[in-house]
Amino acid sequence: MRPSVSFYLTFVLCLCLGLLCLLFVGCWSSHWRGGFSWDGSALQFNWHPVLMVSGLLVLYGNAAVVYRVPFTWEQRKHVWKLVHAGLMLLALLLSVLGLCAVFDFHRGLNIPHLYSLHSWVGICTVVLFTVQWVLGLAGLLLPCSPPWFRRSLKPLHVWIGKAVLILSVTSCISGINEKLLLSLNGSGNGSEPYSSLPVEAKFANFLGILIVAFGLVVFGILSKSEWQRPQTDERVHILLNENNT
Amino acid sequence: MRPSVSFYLTFVLCLCLGLLCLLFVGCWSSHWRGGFSWDGSALQFNWHPVLMVSGLLVLYGNAAVVYRVPFTWEQRKHVWKLVHAGLMLLALLLSVLGLCAVFDFHRGLNIPHLYSLHSWVGICTVVLFTVQWVLGLAGLLLPCSPPWFRRSLKPLHVWIGKAVLILSVTSCISGINEKLLLSLNGSGNGSEPYSSLPVEAKFANFLGILIVAFGLVVFGILSKSEWQRPQTDERVHILLNENNT
Repeated sequence: MRPSVSFYLTFVLCLCLGLLCLLFVGCWSSHWRGGFSWDGSALQFNWHPVLMVSGLLVLYGNAAVVYRVPFTWEQRKHVWKLVHAGLMLLALLLSVLGLCAVFDFHRGLNIPHLYSLHSWVGICTVVLFTVQWVLGLAGLLLPCSPPWFRRSLKPLHVWIGKAVLILSVTSCISGINEKLLLSLNGSGNGSEPYSSLPVEAKFANFLGILIVAFGLVVFGILSKSEWQRPQTDERVHILLNENNT
Repeated sequence: MRPSVSFYLTFVLCLCLGLLCLLFVGCWSSHWRGGFSWDGSALQFNWHPVLMVSGLLVLYGNAAVVYRVPFTWEQRKHVWKLVHAGLMLLALLLSVLGLCAVFDFHRGLNIPHLYSLHSWVGICTVVLFTVQWVLGLAGLLLPCSPPWFRRSLKPLHVWIGKAVLILSVTSCISGINEKLLLSLNGSGNGSEPYSSLPVEAKFANFLGILIVAFGLVVFGILSKSEWQRPQTDERVHILLNENNT
């Protein structure tokens, strides 16, 4: 199988898993958790999982693999750097909005901020993502950055990029688990406990499995060296070969 | 800095973080959770975090990077394959024992098995690890495996290896979070709730951060191509160069 065919099959799987994650998290929050509002109530909390899964996971994952799409290799790298940086900025803004939703909800109900391990790992993820975006802008996008800085930043940028993805999957899984434990086991809410595995619990657990699958597929795409955007010389060679066949 | 010096500095960091993880998980279970026994009680549960962090995370992580240690490059690869497979088997056995501890505890207290997202992700991790070990033995260690199988298995083995590490970190974080939510927020146990962040919660949250740091350092070592064991020709060249200087 040609590398581009196997890439596109994996990329379609990645897109489908991402869409399923969005569908499942939206459905969980609207159908079982009562929908959305922005008024400091539990309905404001519901924006938190939706915005984190959309921004920090699905958009982040797709923005990370955008250079690997063979279709983009025919165009100038700088254009796709801008697309990559723009999508990442949008992912970061959605994540920050997702944090605002949960902080506002905590304030409204006098719940302390940042006590659980989920929140510690989650906040580290968003801080690392912000550092990564600012460093990427300064070192890899702006033309005035010195070549030594660009050279030494690139492997670090690749490593931090994968680290944010790992932290993002970890935060999402621990967050869904925490929400189910707190909301299904909470006293006086009339719901069946988490341990009896009601339909909501099965549905949200399955969302967790979809998130893990999405993260691992993105990770697989990033790890395959054959799918990397070729350097300029190689790209000319590929284009010439494709024109001759 | 020579690659071997930067490797050894990172490797020492990896060993220290691994030891700290073991120390913290042991201290949490013995000091705050009441210690250990094997009688179906809550004290049997306490083996679960200790065995999973020891086997599925710390021993697994160290067994994964064993080929990268430059000291091993002077010896036959087959010997280090046996060490790698042996350490991985020990990690797998500790993980299975860790699962037995929690299943026995559930049976003793009539708690349903495998209801939480943590348990779903955790069981997937151990199943994937088992498949990986069996495939690795059949395809990469046994001399009778056909070359085409060996060639096509190797990249998959590397990818699944990293996937198990990601799943292992995710399982540990969601598990610690779940244990703190259930044990500190449980009714009538006299402890302060998780949200007031008592000393135990801070300690176990910090254990979670150590686990994430350990996972990311192992991941960093595995991702750096300069630290890979050289192919045979390169190795002879390195050894000759080192003897000449």
